[in-house]
Amino acid sequence: GKRYTITLLPGDGIGPEVISVTKKVLNLTGSLEGIEFGFKEMPMGGAALDLTGVPLPEETLSTAKQSDAVLLGAIGGYKWDKNEKHLKPETGLLQLREGLKVFANLRPASVLPQLVDASTLKKEVAEGVDLMVVRELTGGIYFGKPRGFGTNENGEEIGFNTEVYAAYEIDRIARVAFETARKRRGKLCSVDKANVLEASMFWRRRVMAIASEYPDVELTHMYVDNAAMQLVRNPKQFDTIVTNNIFGDILSDEASMITGSIGMLPSASLGAAGPGLFEPIHGSAPDIAGQDKANPLATILSAAMLLKYGLGEEKAALRIETAVLDTLSKGFRTGDIYSEQNKLVGCKEMGEEVLKSI
Amino acid sequence: GKRYTITLLPGDGIGPEVISVTKKVLNLTGSLEGIEFGFKEMPMGGAALDLTGVPLPEETLSTAKQSDAVLLGAIGGYKWDKNEKHLKPETGLLQLREGLKVFANLRPASVLPQLVDASTLKKEVAEGVDLMVVRELTGGIYFGKPRGFGTNENGEEIGFNTEVYAAYEIDRIARVAFETARKRRGKLCSVDKANVLEASMFWRRRVMAIASEYPDVELTHMYVDNAAMQLVRNPKQFDTIVTNNIFGDILSDEASMITGSIGMLPSASLGAAGPGLFEPIHGSAPDIAGQDKANPLATILSAAMLLKYGLGEEKAALRIETAVLDTLSKGFRTGDIYSEQNKLVGCKEMGEEVLKSI
Ligand SMILES: CC(C)[C@H](C(=O)O)[C@@H](O)C(=O)O
Ligand SMILES: CC(C)[C@H](C(=O)O)[C@@H](O)C(=O)O
Repeated sequence: GKRYTITLLPGDGIGPEVISVTKKVLNLTGSLEGIEFGFKEMPMGGAALDLTGVPLPEETLSTAKQSDAVLLGAIGGYKWDKNEKHLKPETGLLQLREGLKVFANLRPASVLPQLVDASTLKKEVAEGVDLMVVRELTGGIYFGKPRGFGTNENGEEIGFNTEVYAAYEIDRIARVAFETARKRRGKLCSVDKANVLEASMFWRRRVMAIASEYPDVELTHMYVDNAAMQLVRNPKQFDTIVTNNIFGDILSDEASMITGSIGMLPSASLGAAGPGLFEPIHGSAPDIAGQDKANPLATILSAAMLLKYGLGEEKAALRIETAVLDTLSKGFRTGDIYSEQNKLVGCKEMGEEVLKSI
Repeated sequence: GKRYTITLLPGDGIGPEVISVTKKVLNLTGSLEGIEFGFKEMPMGGAALDLTGVPLPEETLSTAKQSDAVLLGAIGGYKWDKNEKHLKPETGLLQLREGLKVFANLRPASVLPQLVDASTLKKEVAEGVDLMVVRELTGGIYFGKPRGFGTNENGEEIGFNTEVYAAYEIDRIARVAFETARKRRGKLCSVDKANVLEASMFWRRRVMAIASEYPDVELTHMYVDNAAMQLVRNPKQFDTIVTNNIFGDILSDEASMITGSIGMLPSASLGAAGPGLFEPIHGSAPDIAGQDKANPLATILSAAMLLKYGLGEEKAALRIETAVLDTLSKGFRTGDIYSEQNKLVGCKEMGEEVLKSI
């Protein structure tokens, strides 16, 4: 049988609950598919701050690097909100992305037939939405230098950041996006602000250059303000979207809310080599932490992405995805996706039901 | 009677049609309120490019500066899309904003009871939405230096921009936002990305400092990704939003689409002194230009904002706003907001109906 080492980073808030449930799902799936998982649980985020004084301890990063894939729960909470920048849980996450060099963040947002009512959009607008945001994750204004505080030529205090992309950074994320679109419906929309920003003009120029390698994929371009509108107006027009770090942060969250079920949405962050990072897109939800109310499905589906994109175990991934759909079809719902005539369950029970379906 | 000089910038696409209708509305309103308008029509955007070779001729800017207010139709079109940056219609608009020093962009987004069905959001979510985005308009990454193209330390080609805010820029837009919130429902939400960007940390710090001058306004802070979600999840939670130039570009467009009637939404851009710039938030819609199909109401409502915010003529402004609501209540609709059982009209006829209601 095959054996993989998975680093688990439960993190904060509801993180430990959803990771614990997902671990069981991975174990059962593995035993049925002839795969053995060795789990290493490491502190990260606020939990790591409390334990070690930093949001991403060196040992956590090196363990993650040496494993075959990394599964993260969620990080952050009120307790650390006022911390200085280098002591914020979020900074640990950025360091982890940078350390693992996972430059490509895949964020699917699809409206499941079982959950179409959860969207705030009208049924006919939400129904059938199935898009993927490919977000650049280790460049742009998140990491660009110079950055900081200072004074301008008039002696006025300023705060500043740099939005910067090098050709190779755009080329590699564009390739991931074209490959992704090719495996989907063959349509790629690159989102930028090329009518104003040089960084975006350069982005567009490189994406167009890479397009020649993918004549079978239909490429379009859209300004970010228009994209934010079109996601509300008619999200079905999108197949795959590729965009920079900050626009991807905004648009992928908007897209996920359009599905109405953020508690359902997984994500994968991949590099050129080395382990990928897999995490639900929801936050740590401190208000419901420890109450067995969290929806574990986003993390369970992140584990499916881990199997598919991280380990190439497509069959095992499909087994999990099918079990999740099956569990929903049986009517089991956590509070966040509950609607009348369904069965309200907690985090653990939802996990048990998925295990049964597997 | 009073006399004001208004610079009209019809611009491109549907711009000339909506401006021509709005001019009549202003004239009639003026004659009833004892106000005389002197109009100066100047080229701008693509029209100016074709005529003079630049998107904002010096004479257009100087005429605008010398007038009491500026009313813009729309700019841009396929014809100039591939132009170099300094020859883009959009660049003319940015130069106009900079030249007039209109740092505060007010973008209301409200769902009119008559048009609640136009939204793609469910009725119970859209109904009663009434928010105002106060967007910083002459700073941030739109204007920050250094910017351009170059090579990094590894000799790789790069494109880059600078997001930068000085204290005075944040302070003055914050004051406009607090004043705006005070005249509305007393709630201000400042949107930033202070968990990642220094420019946002500085933004938040200054907004908090200015808050002490407005103890009667309730101030909250939200990350931009969350704001993009919350606008879809529950837009009614917002009263006034204040944010930087690029986030304001994205969020105000998203908010406007939530109303479902972009053809209805006006905007005002104001400086510390000098004429304000008023324009519909929709674009030049080249596909329907010259066909008498455009919705002139956004421009007519921009003229109302011009009267209210630009000239302090609140009574005349109210007269126009009431006439617009009245026209909608009578069932007149242009194509973009048409739904069954209403009366479909063109741009001119809609203008005639507003004139009748005035
Ligand atoms: C927590 C934060 C730093 C992070 C980001 O902005 O990337 C989050 O919003 C996300 O999208 O994963
Ligand atoms: C046309 C463009 C430069 C402009 C902007 O980005 O400010 C437009 O999108 C707007 O919001 O008025």
